[in-house]
Parts: sequence; structure tokens; C-alpha cells
Amino acid sequence: MILANTYHLHLQPGEEVVAGGGGLHKFMGWPGPMLTDSGGFQVFSLSEMRKITEEGVVFRSPHDGQMIKLTPERSIAIQNTLGADVIMAFDECPPYPATHQEVEAATERTYRWLERSIAAHQRQDQALFAIVQGGVYLDLRCQAATTLAQLDLPGFAIGGVSVGEPPELMAQIVQATTPLLPPQKPRYLMGVGTYREMAIAIASGVDLFDCVIPTRWARHGTAIVQGDRWNLKNAKFREDFGTLDPTCPCYTCQNFSRAYLSHLVRAQEILAYTLLSIHNITELIRFTQKIRQAIFSDRFVEEFGHWLVTKSC
Amino acid sequence: MILANTYHLHLQPGEEVVAGGGGLHKFMGWPGPMLTDSGGFQVFSLSEMRKITEEGVVFRSPHDGQMIKLTPERSIAIQNTLGADVIMAFDECPPYPATHQEVEAATERTYRWLERSIAAHQRQDQALFAIVQGGVYLDLRCQAATTLAQLDLPGFAIGGVSVGEPPELMAQIVQATTPLLPPQKPRYLMGVGTYREMAIAIASGVDLFDCVIPTRWARHGTAIVQGDRWNLKNAKFREDFGTLDPTCPCYTCQNFSRAYLSHLVRAQEILAYTLLSIHNITELIRFTQKIRQAIFSDRFVEEFGHWLVTKSC
Repeated sequence: MILANTYHLHLQPGEEVVAGGGGLHKFMGWPGPMLTDSGGFQVFSLSEMRKITEEGVVFRSPHDGQMIKLTPERSIAIQNTLGADVIMAFDECPPYPATHQEVEAATERTYRWLERSIAAHQRQDQALFAIVQGGVYLDLRCQAATTLAQLDLPGFAIGGVSVGEPPELMAQIVQATTPLLPPQKPRYLMGVGTYREMAIAIASGVDLFDCVIPTRWARHGTAIVQGDRWNLKNAKFREDFGTLDPTCPCYTCQNFSRAYLSHLVRAQEILAYTLLSIHNITELIRFTQKIRQAIFSDRFVEEFGHWLVTKSC
Repeated sequence: MILANTYHLHLQPGEEVVAGGGGLHKFMGWPGPMLTDSGGFQVFSLSEMRKITEEGVVFRSPHDGQMIKLTPERSIAIQNTLGADVIMAFDECPPYPATHQEVEAATERTYRWLERSIAAHQRQDQALFAIVQGGVYLDLRCQAATTLAQLDLPGFAIGGVSVGEPPELMAQIVQATTPLLPPQKPRYLMGVGTYREMAIAIASGVDLFDCVIPTRWARHGTAIVQGDRWNLKNAKFREDFGTLDPTCPCYTCQNFSRAYLSHLVRAQEILAYTLLSIHNITELIRFTQKIRQAIFSDRFVEEFGHWLVTKSC
């Protein structure tokens, strides 16, 4: 599944251009499943000059300086126009740290915005997911999850984690919230993650993740190999003619050596970032495939239990 | 055929690393034919602090500031180690403008360096090509071509063009020099070119070209389409959902619209540069394929004669 950003696509090229090209799948030539976020996270994390009211958010476009208003109705209309398979309710993602009172207000507003998102949603071929907020306050998280779980929606997400809180707190949030969401529906942890974060979340019942790590790390010249993060600029790779990971079936590992990848990264050749992205995405998908197999054969704790206690990437 | 740069590969990762990876083809995963230049052109065009003597050239490495010496023997040894199918004699490429006396001295030195290159060459599975120099002086060009043509070598190149001289002069050089080179051997015009430059050179009997244009223009967000150069950032492409060139069989044209490419270029998404490189390389190869067909059916002048008189990209 590929995630596309509502916020970025609204600013450029604009959702009407994507729709003119036949919708996201056809426009970008991707026949597989797609998801769009609501734009809420980027509005809160990237925009200066933002103002939040009950109606929605007003912010200044970093592209042309224009003031843009994003409301639940507008976010859903944009996502209906973009045409992904899964779309997300427009939520308020409070920063970390924030007081209990501030987060409670944001969580309650997120619920009202969810109701408006559901009412605005026009396409039955798109699955609208709700988002649990509540910051690091477990009482607010549990209250939100319990309330949302009563709604007849096709999937549920946990948002507002990985915003700067300590890893222990994220684990607590996921462990407390996930079991309250319907087990027969997809449970999606937004913005996660690493091997360890995914293993912990899957142990709690999470099914779906999204994360910039595999492509961002690739652009930084680093590869994810069997649990470790390797910097290909490291001198030891200069003459290492082995494949990145001999067990990996990806195009990069089937065709190129660590020494060649190290050379491409040093030369700042853009092929490096493409090849490392292919490997890193493959590796994270393989990790979850192995976990799925372990769950089927009832060996999850034996095979992946160490990720629940040790700290790594 | 892919051209790799001896100068760049010597500086990084170093020819020993490439050899350790099984030679150029295996190291970069390219099973097709390859050629390495001699390094001469880059030494003259890129290096500061260079000093030319009869023995060779000494220059400062832009990577680490070290002084590096490149001689005919060293260039050939590096190219033997890199392992391309075609390798080039080490030549002195005089700048434009330069006096007749300066160019004559460089041309004579290039001949002595060619003799040393031939003597140094160790691998019979690599074809060593000689290079005709002579600047813009047709007497020096003709003398060099006539002299080289008597040598039993597998191919001949015309170097030192496209260094700043007016297009008319380049055409004169190619038209005067090419017929003097053996017609049964490949005749290679180095660093060229555009549609027009290639058409003119082919009319004179040139068989082989190399040029950065298709990939450099791609990195600048521009596409070569049926003789024109298109800037994908142009507003008219924002909502143009047609394919780049409906007659083109390349991966880019088969899968993506002008609007999508325009979006990728605006977003500075590196996929843009990859997709445009695929198209531009395909387009220039198709141009020469069409010329070959026209020559076979004796219709070259009818179909491509307009390139010999008009100016375009």
C-alpha cells in the first residue's frame, strides 16, 4: 500500500490535477492499494502561521504564501477527489508536551471533526478510517478508543504518536489503546516505525503502519539490514563485494554489491537513493511478512520476543 | 553502449575497487558494451593546477587535494584494470581558442602519446581506439587523420570538438576529417551531440557518439520530444494528460503523463530525473535507429536532410 499526503498534493499539483489524470492510482501508475492522510499532521507539524478554530485550521502555504483553510469537510472533499482506497478523518494532533487540559480539548474536537468527516464523505468505494488521539494521557486515549469503537467504520487508526514523546510512552499508548479497537477491523498505527516499534505494536494487535524511515534512510545513504542500520559511506564497505543481504530477494540485492552501493552514495549518484529505497522497503515488508508467518505458526514470542525487550533501530 | 569516465573512476572508487568487483560490467550490473575515455578531456577541462610535460599531466585531485600524475601508460593501465570493451588512447585536448602553433604541438604530442598507449596496452579483449586532434585547424586535422588511418587499430575517434568552437567550425572539422578515416572501422565523434550535430556527422560517415545531453537535460527537468526540448515546468504541462511522445515505446511514455512528469519535476522528486533520462536516452537512440533505416533504404537525404541545414536542438 502506498500512502500519499493530502496536504502536499493539495498544495501541488492540486487535487483537481490528480483527478484530471484519472485519480491517484492512474496519475502515478500504481495499481496497488493507496491511502491518503487527512493533512492534519502536516498542517500542525510543517505550517507556520496556523490558527485553529472549531471550524478548522487556517495556515500559510509554504509554496506561495497564500492563506489556506482546511476543515474536516475540505479535507474529505480533497481526499474524495484524490481517490485513494483508504482515507483518514481530519484530526487535531496536539504537540508533545501539552497539558492534560489542552489534549482533552483537542481529543474532543477531533471527535466532533470525525462526525463532520463522516457526514462529508461522498464515495462508498473509499474506506474512511477514524483516528484515536489523546496525547500521552492514557485516560484520554482509552476514552477516545472506546467511543470510536462504537462507530460503524471500516478501520481505526492511532494517531499523534512519534511526535517527540519517549519510546516507553509510545509503547504504553499503543498497548493501552489497540485492544479497545475492534479486532475484526484494520488497526493502523500512524507514522511508525522501526523494527522494534512495529514488533511491539503488532504484539498489541496493530495491523497497519506507515513510515518515512525506509526512503528517508535510503536518501541518507543508509541500508536496513537484518535489524541494523548501515551507513554505506563507512570505509569497510569500499571493497566489500558481498550483496547487501544474501537472504534478500530485492532487485538491489540481486544485482549490486555493497562496494558498488558505497561508491554510488559517495558519488551522490541518485541511483543510490533509488536502489537503497528498493532494499529498505523490501526489508521492512519482509519483516512484517515473517511476523505474520510466526503468528500463523504460533511462534511470535519465540521469534520476535527479543524486539519487545531490547532497543535497536 | 555505456561510457564510463576513467578520470572520475580513478579518483573514486579507484580502478582497483572496480576490478575487485569483477570489472566495470559486473560492478555496475550492465551486461551490454562499455567504453572508457582516456581521462585526458577531464584532466584538461576540470582540473586546476595541471602541468603538462612530454611525460604526461600532473594535476591536483579535487577529491582530496593530492597531486596525481596521468601518463599514456597510466591511463591505459587504469583502463585495462577497469575492463571496458573499448578503451581510448591518452590524448592532449587543446582548449579553444589556441594558436596554430600550440595546437600543432599538442597534436604531435598526441601522436607520440598514442604510440606509448599502444605499447602499454595489455588486454587483447579490449579494443584501443586512436583519437584525431588538431583543434579547428583543418590542415592539422587532415594530417592527423591521414597518419592515424595507417595504423592497424580497431577504431578511430575525433576528439577535441564541442569545446566552445562555433557549430559551423565543428561541422567543417567533422566533414574534413571523417572521410580520411577507414570506412570499415568504427568512426567515433566524441562528446556529440544534438540531433543536428549527429545528422551532420552521420552524413559525413560517423558511426558512434557519446554525450551528456540526454541525462543532463533530464536532470534539468527537460525532455527531448521529436526534435524539440521541452521544459516540463512550463505551465502548459500542468494539466496535459497526454503521454510525452505517443510514438515512443519507453517505460516513461508507456506509463506516465506529461502532467505527472511536470508534477514530479516541480516537486524535485528524483523519480523525475530517472524517468526523463529513460525517455531522453530512448529518444536519441531511436533517432539514430531511424537514420540507420533511412540509410539502408537510401532515403537519408529525403528524411534527414533538413537537419543538415536548419538549426535546432
